Amino acid sequence: MGEVKLLGTWPSPFYYRVVWALKLKGIAYEFIEEDLGNKSPLLLQYNPVHKKIPVLVHNGKPICESMIILEYIEQVWPQNPLLPSDPYERAIARFWIKFTEDKSLAIWMVFGTKGEEQEKAVKDCLEMLKTIEEHALGDSQKKLFGGDEINMVDIAFGQLAYWLQCIEQVSGVKLLEASKFPRLQTWVENFKQVPIIKQNLPDRDEMLAFFKTRREMRLAAAK
Amino acid sequence: MGEVKLLGTWPSPFYYRVVWALKLKGIAYEFIEEDLGNKSPLLLQYNPVHKKIPVLVHNGKPICESMIILEYIEQVWPQNPLLPSDPYERAIARFWIKFTEDKSLAIWMVFGTKGEEQEKAVKDCLEMLKTIEEHALGDSQKKLFGGDEINMVDIAFGQLAYWLQCIEQVSGVKLLEASKFPRLQTWVENFKQVPIIKQNLPDRDEMLAFFKTRREMRLAAAK
Repeated sequence: MGEVKLLGTWPSPFYYRVVWALKLKGIAYEFIEEDLGNKSPLLLQYNPVHKKIPVLVHNGKPICESMIILEYIEQVWPQNPLLPSDPYERAIARFWIKFTEDKSLAIWMVFGTKGEEQEKAVKDCLEMLKTIEEHALGDSQKKLFGGDEINMVDIAFGQLAYWLQCIEQVSGVKLLEASKFPRLQTWVENFKQVPIIKQNLPDRDEMLAFFKTRREMRLAAAK
Repeated sequence: MGEVKLLGTWPSPFYYRVVWALKLKGIAYEFIEEDLGNKSPLLLQYNPVHKKIPVLVHNGKPICESMIILEYIEQVWPQNPLLPSDPYERAIARFWIKFTEDKSLAIWMVFGTKGEEQEKAVKDCLEMLKTIEEHALGDSQKKLFGGDEINMVDIAFGQLAYWLQCIEQVSGVKLLEASKFPRLQTWVENFKQVPIIKQNLPDRDEMLAFFKTRREMRLAAAK
């Protein structure tokens, strides 16, 4: 298995993507906590382009970007597969992973703005949720995106199941209304019931306090 | 091999990514030309989320998003590999593919804007080129991103080798100066010498005329 280290910070949903994947695969790792207000020389050395967590370090070699780390994990440790083996099903999975990578910035725009700018972000966010509701979940009866078992698409969408609710509360807007997005709401419930997910989520109160402070700082800086 | 169809439009670098990959793999296909000013019911049916080309249709099943199509092609037709087999090397390749997917919008912002807005886009574009020059090509003596043979990273960066020059000319700004980006300039020359690339590029004059008209329309609409 070799030496596995993970650089991350506790409130980041991108860090949790890697945590969930490693746990689902049964891979032991050492966690190295990063302080993003004071980035370590190690982080700057390992991810000189983006200077961001998460970084997975396997036998001394760094891999950056959460979804690329997950593809790496899938290739190196094929047990409990996180992607379908069928090429077409795999392409569909990657389509939705790319979709959330490209679109979910809107959630963080809702979090970091107010007034007109926030209204625009809310619109983008609702459009994203509508597309997932109608096209990704469609008229399927699947428990999760991966079917009965969690897969890489579920993990990619993980921030919608936990962080979004925190952002709603902190930002004072409701996005994922169950009446508008019944399939997505069912997915959220099912996703949070998966034992590895349930056991590996940041504390809700600490998250709320953290994101509340962050939002105030962000808005103050934008003035 | 099955029935392979490709929906595309001749001036699109994203369509050419798929053309190059299919030709490098030796896969015969039927080209279906799309008119993006009047999208066909077939395109809307095959790509209801983004309504964009390219779409690869293999045995009746549509795959969307150029780089996801390339991953599909790589899995279905493994001959003449476009990705390294080593997991770490593969992760590095995917890192740069994601980098260009995330950042190269800046090129098209230069194309679609003027004045202050264009200055901002030029800045973003130069930053992107600097990162590629320093980190992706680094101090390596590699002929191409893939080494001696073209790979998926080269294909992903293809728009920098041909479309960028057209955008520079139409927009009246110089971005890829050889004195500032010597490694990238060498890569451009090497990339265009690859026979499959050389033989499969849109006509330069037709491209210039097309993008000149498009830029005028874009700027007129933005007024």
